[in-house]
Amino acid sequence: MSSIFTKIIEGEIPCHKVAETDEHIAFLDINPIAEGHTLVVPKQEIDYFFDLPTELMQSTMSLSRTISGAIDEALNPLRTGIIVQGLEVPHAHLHLVPLYKKTQPMALGHNVPVSEERMVELKEQISSHISL
Amino acid sequence: MSSIFTKIIEGEIPCHKVAETDEHIAFLDINPIAEGHTLVVPKQEIDYFFDLPTELMQSTMSLSRTISGAIDEALNPLRTGIIVQGLEVPHAHLHLVPLYKKTQPMALGHNVPVSEERMVELKEQISSHISL
Repeated sequence: MSSIFTKIIEGEIPCHKVAETDEHIAFLDINPIAEGHTLVVPKQEIDYFFDLPTELMQSTMSLSRTISGAIDEALNPLRTGIIVQGLEVPHAHLHLVPLYKKTQPMALGHNVPVSEERMVELKEQISSHISL
Repeated sequence: MSSIFTKIIEGEIPCHKVAETDEHIAFLDINPIAEGHTLVVPKQEIDYFFDLPTELMQSTMSLSRTISGAIDEALNPLRTGIIVQGLEVPHAHLHLVPLYKKTQPMALGHNVPVSEERMVELKEQISSHISL
């Protein structure tokens, strides 16, 4: 069965897409732990992040850097952090988490409420700072 | 002033080192959130992870993959996750966090007690699976 991320890649499930390349898709996490929390997902369906082929791992990091720059420009957090956990969806992905203050919890599950209207704004703001 | 990591690199502060290359050092986090929690630190003192030069970011990921493989072999977690947060020490570093069960909190600050004797064992177990 396709992973939920493959369904998003194939357009079966909608998302707030901020970037797409031949190898990757990036979209706002639907359970954000901060405004602008973005997932970077290699399209190839590989479970464990560290099992990604070297070039794909490296291009995932390069794209993550590009998107973190866009998040930093658009939303002005202190910086953008990374979480790779991967115990829920068996399809490698990297969380980019804008950190707005030093005391902000950076852990999946610490969701913050973000309205659908605000998600659309965030997607527009971040994607407007990305040129691939 | 040198960062605490530069002091560790220069041997002024001791650590449980699991690997060292010309560009990096990796050692057990002294405030582990799981047994085997390891920091991978580029020796060059750059604050923000995403400001690392591309090659250094990529070699940091490659070394992190090697060490995660050693952690996985030595300690048999479900997998090893990544955290890059970096609001405390202004010297880029990557946390490798072995995840032993699905319910394990993966957030800095959720420290677990690990005795000095066990830290020495963990360092030996992990480093014995690394050949650089």
